[in-house]
Amino acid sequence: MESHPLVGVVMGSKSDYEVLKPAIDIFIEFSIAHEVRVVSAHRTPDWLFRYAEQAEDRGLQVIIAGAGGAAHLPGMLAAKTLVPVLGVPVPATLLNGIDSLLSIVQMPKGVPVGTLAIGKPGAANAALLAAEILALQDGGLRGRLRGWRESRRDEVLAEELPQ
Amino acid sequence: MESHPLVGVVMGSKSDYEVLKPAIDIFIEFSIAHEVRVVSAHRTPDWLFRYAEQAEDRGLQVIIAGAGGAAHLPGMLAAKTLVPVLGVPVPATLLNGIDSLLSIVQMPKGVPVGTLAIGKPGAANAALLAAEILALQDGGLRGRLRGWRESRRDEVLAEELPQ
Amino acid sequence: MESHPLVGVVMGSKSDYEVLKPAIDIFIEFSIAHEVRVVSAHRTPDWLFRYAEQAEDRGLQVIIAGAGGAAHLPGMLAAKTLVPVLGVPVPATLLNGIDSLLSIVQMPKGVPVGTLAIGKPGAANAALLAAEILALQDGGLRGRLRGWRESRRDEVLAEELPQ
Amino acid sequence: MESHPLVGVVMGSKSDYEVLKPAIDIFIEFSIAHEVRVVSAHRTPDWLFRYAEQAEDRGLQVIIAGAGGAAHLPGMLAAKTLVPVLGVPVPATLLNGIDSLLSIVQMPKGVPVGTLAIGKPGAANAALLAAEILALQDGGLRGRLRGWRESRRDEVLAEELPQ
Amino acid sequence: MESHPLVGVVMGSKSDYEVLKPAIDIFIEFSIAHEVRVVSAHRTPDWLFRYAEQAEDRGLQVIIAGAGGAAHLPGMLAAKTLVPVLGVPVPATLLNGIDSLLSIVQMPKGVPVGTLAIGKPGAANAALLAAEILALQDGGLRGRLRGWRESRRDEVLAEELPQ
Amino acid sequence: MESHPLVGVVMGSKSDYEVLKPAIDIFIEFSIAHEVRVVSAHRTPDWLFRYAEQAEDRGLQVIIAGAGGAAHLPGMLAAKTLVPVLGVPVPATLLNGIDSLLSIVQMPKGVPVGTLAIGKPGAANAALLAAEILALQDGGLRGRLRGWRESRRDEVLAEELPQ
Amino acid sequence: MESHPLVGVVMGSKSDYEVLKPAIDIFIEFSIAHEVRVVSAHRTPDWLFRYAEQAEDRGLQVIIAGAGGAAHLPGMLAAKTLVPVLGVPVPATLLNGIDSLLSIVQMPKGVPVGTLAIGKPGAANAALLAAEILALQDGGLRGRLRGWRESRRDEVLAEELPQ
Amino acid sequence: MESHPLVGVVMGSKSDYEVLKPAIDIFIEFSIAHEVRVVSAHRTPDWLFRYAEQAEDRGLQVIIAGAGGAAHLPGMLAAKTLVPVLGVPVPATLLNGIDSLLSIVQMPKGVPVGTLAIGKPGAANAALLAAEILALQDGGLRGRLRGWRESRRDEVLAEELPQ
Repeated sequence: MESHPLVGVVMGSKSDYEVLKPAIDIFIEFSIAHEVRVVSAHRTPDWLFRYAEQAEDRGLQVIIAGAGGAAHLPGMLAAKTLVPVLGVPVPATLLNGIDSLLSIVQMPKGVPVGTLAIGKPGAANAALLAAEILALQDGGLRGRLRGWRESRRDEVLAEELPQ
Repeated sequence: MESHPLVGVVMGSKSDYEVLKPAIDIFIEFSIAHEVRVVSAHRTPDWLFRYAEQAEDRGLQVIIAGAGGAAHLPGMLAAKTLVPVLGVPVPATLLNGIDSLLSIVQMPKGVPVGTLAIGKPGAANAALLAAEILALQDGGLRGRLRGWRESRRDEVLAEELPQ
Repeated sequence: MESHPLVGVVMGSKSDYEVLKPAIDIFIEFSIAHEVRVVSAHRTPDWLFRYAEQAEDRGLQVIIAGAGGAAHLPGMLAAKTLVPVLGVPVPATLLNGIDSLLSIVQMPKGVPVGTLAIGKPGAANAALLAAEILALQDGGLRGRLRGWRESRRDEVLAEELPQ
Repeated sequence: MESHPLVGVVMGSKSDYEVLKPAIDIFIEFSIAHEVRVVSAHRTPDWLFRYAEQAEDRGLQVIIAGAGGAAHLPGMLAAKTLVPVLGVPVPATLLNGIDSLLSIVQMPKGVPVGTLAIGKPGAANAALLAAEILALQDGGLRGRLRGWRESRRDEVLAEELPQ
Repeated sequence: MESHPLVGVVMGSKSDYEVLKPAIDIFIEFSIAHEVRVVSAHRTPDWLFRYAEQAEDRGLQVIIAGAGGAAHLPGMLAAKTLVPVLGVPVPATLLNGIDSLLSIVQMPKGVPVGTLAIGKPGAANAALLAAEILALQDGGLRGRLRGWRESRRDEVLAEELPQ
Repeated sequence: MESHPLVGVVMGSKSDYEVLKPAIDIFIEFSIAHEVRVVSAHRTPDWLFRYAEQAEDRGLQVIIAGAGGAAHLPGMLAAKTLVPVLGVPVPATLLNGIDSLLSIVQMPKGVPVGTLAIGKPGAANAALLAAEILALQDGGLRGRLRGWRESRRDEVLAEELPQ
Repeated sequence: MESHPLVGVVMGSKSDYEVLKPAIDIFIEFSIAHEVRVVSAHRTPDWLFRYAEQAEDRGLQVIIAGAGGAAHLPGMLAAKTLVPVLGVPVPATLLNGIDSLLSIVQMPKGVPVGTLAIGKPGAANAALLAAEILALQDGGLRGRLRGWRESRRDEVLAEELPQ
Repeated sequence: MESHPLVGVVMGSKSDYEVLKPAIDIFIEFSIAHEVRVVSAHRTPDWLFRYAEQAEDRGLQVIIAGAGGAAHLPGMLAAKTLVPVLGVPVPATLLNGIDSLLSIVQMPKGVPVGTLAIGKPGAANAALLAAEILALQDGGLRGRLRGWRESRRDEVLAEELPQ
């Protein structure tokens, strides 16, 4: 799945993996080529820069970055590449992710990070937004996304509540 | 500028215009075809749905939606289209935009909104992120984005502080 | 209980059911005809609009809507009907419902949602407020509400604390 | 306008008047009989209780209560009457109304207050929700509400943005 | 212990008892005559008023009131008596007591409530502050308070940390 | 007014004076002997300790301490004296006093500070609570407090709203 | 390890030990002479002052102070010594350490406390910052710090994610 | 003043200068050699890395970094150097600096940033903490710091309040 990836999923720490997993599951479900990497803004800053610098040439179309606390990873990637960066606030501290949300979303003018919800729903949605971006050039993918939405709609319509 | 727009910039109220203007300025600066509309989730819900339903066929590649308070516009657009939606929290209430930030970013799994910073910096960044997405299919635009970043870098390097 | 319902209890997801249940219990206790539906603003937006559009003709007097995170359900229902809408913030994310509270209560001028407390107490109170509204036309119901309050008062007066 | 009022608009302090005024304007616009009173939970607790106790017999159908800071007025009214109480958080302190929002909305099970947005939009919406409640028994009023909404929709559709 | 009580410890609900217990323990430890009552602002408003109105004649010197959520009990007691009222925010909702803290402490000019910390430490400190107030007229009590503080100091000085 | 003061009003900085002034005005209005001092926890820690150590022997019955930001003054005074300490959070930073509120109110078990509202209303209420405490031994003062409350009640009852 | 300590690690309560332990572990790992003490701002204020007054003469180069709630310990130490003070907010209350963070970091001009993250990561980082400060005079320590960082970098680079 | 600087004062944008100026004033007052630079984490990431990489060899003993919003500058500098980094949250957005505070202080284990208060008081204190660190090797500087504190104490003791 990882040769010629279109999307890079990076996280600040291996311990963020469970939170990011819903993004990976989406890519698997939609057969979107992707790679998954640990890239720490604070422990491996040079590796972070190299990853971002090479992203365009390596053919990445979107980067999804998840990080917790003072979550610098998404913003620093965005500062080093023109590949669209989507950020997922990871609830890694006692503040339940409000710190990472603000650290990711409040970027100054000039370096955008498209930010999703805190935690697992945000990870899934980052992958879906990446898929929507890829679908701008891939009608088949858009069709699969449409089908996915329709089946989710049908699930709701079929839901039975306790009596 | 508005024929065959690639990006739709929509806002919940005419009073949001000043906050969204930096996005429009970016599109003008980069010669990106766009349209600007007032579409209120609460006052014109049917028009909101129609706008979203037609977005794909009309050729929109990205929708930027700004809204304040209980900011439902970005999320409801995203629920009705597979065109990528970027949300800009507008500081329209006494809570300085923290209410609109949470209303936009905390979307449940299934319907993503890429959220930017509160207010004008977020509007500019929404346009830049839209440009990065368009640049995936437009090498010339990516080149212009690269030039823009370089000139911003050079501005910083040339800045003189008071003595 | 569900034929000719006077109150519609809707929720954004089946997983909100436990939080909304105290509302349903109140309606059962007071023999108020009601219906319970899953209506997702994000997964079933068209169904949401149809539900709201038909509410008045179907004879609904009050709609209670519970939702979590970027809780758009109550506000979008309110945008599509003149039947009074009461909103219950569901604590569905890591932010403990403060996100859904702000998403529900901070509605702009023109489209009101009467908002109750976060979680189960809010659900019970939404049902009691609905009952108070129905009691404007139903003296018997008002009497039962008065009796309920009196028995709650008597419970407090009879409470024995540990020695 | 104040003989046989259907709605009571009460506020904790004369200084809250400007914030509550949009509610009064709505009642005037819709020709809804109402009264306006200063009733302070902390300075005139006995008068507050008497007001609440007499509300039902005096024919009030809805009470709108605005208060700031530790805003006890709406909740204490609700504790003393079965007339539906709607609360408007007034931004009277340095906390911009977040204190009054929480003091009003977080009522315990048993005593509901339907809470609206902080400040003037909340006041207007309290009046509109009251009108929706009254319209359950007054088809003419519902028609006027429908017309008001339609004209608001048309305003949005006719809005012209700067070129 | 409850004949001729000098301090009234009241709580909004029997479920607040565990949070208030540290206050009661302090009174027992210092042999301060006290009484403990459930007085709900919302379920027993009349009983609340009567309790406050009789406090002075019954010889109460301090009232300690604990309440959660939209915690109106301390402020409404204070509105009805000149006996000093101390408030303890009880963490009874999903907001961990920040709602009750603001509901208790943000009283408007004219009706003071001396507010203590959220939860059990606040309950203990309410009792200690009450004891300091009583000690203004009771040198023996002040001496016992001084001894208590000294033993707490000595505990710290004797504490041994893990090696 | 300052000979044999019963109440000490202390503040962390001369710039806090305007916020504390409503407390002083209350003491003047009620003819309560008081003194006013600048005592900075951070700039004059030794003077703070000495002030607290001498408070009891100097006959102070209550200390009111106002401070902003990391407001340590009330808590450190309370750690050094058994005279009741009341704290007033001063809005001295960009956080509007929420920092000083938490720094003052969240005292650990053992050292109580009775905390009032942020800013001027809190200052006035600190003085009124001090007066209530002094009135436990001064029936005349209690009578004056009762009269003051009654005149405040009458003001509300006489208030005329705009027509 | 405790003779001639260069760093003092102090905490407001023995119960803070587990939170501060990562700091101690860092000092042990880097063979930095240190001492660990319980010094309560509120229970042992005199001992706090003496500890701070003697710090310079005793040769302490850095003091690390951890405290929870209304965390006065770091700021009061800083008010009494010119030895650099680093503060660690301990999550000791229901507010998850946001109260201690604000109580520690929002010091007024004149008395600095270098504040680290809430809880254990902050404790470890306080020790690392202390080590960086000591390393200004100790090239060997700086080398060990460099090695530690390199091994942390290598750990990230070698991390394997689930397949 | 800038030859052989011991301290680097860096800021994310020229517009942060006014907030950082109190730090510069302190260095001038204490005759501490320093340099002032604009180094943007987002606009000049390579320059940021180079600045940090050269800091040690250039003889910097402390770096003070001020930044607003998603304030990544202090943390990224700290990730690239072992020179102690002190962070100053700049109030550059509508959130009054709470976003920059959390982005700076909530660093993960391994990369410390000693964080000061939001805004100008924090800038002054960053400089004072830097001075305390330098004073570990410079007895004369420590003496001047002691004198400065004493004169601040004397100012407080001499302050006259309005009568």
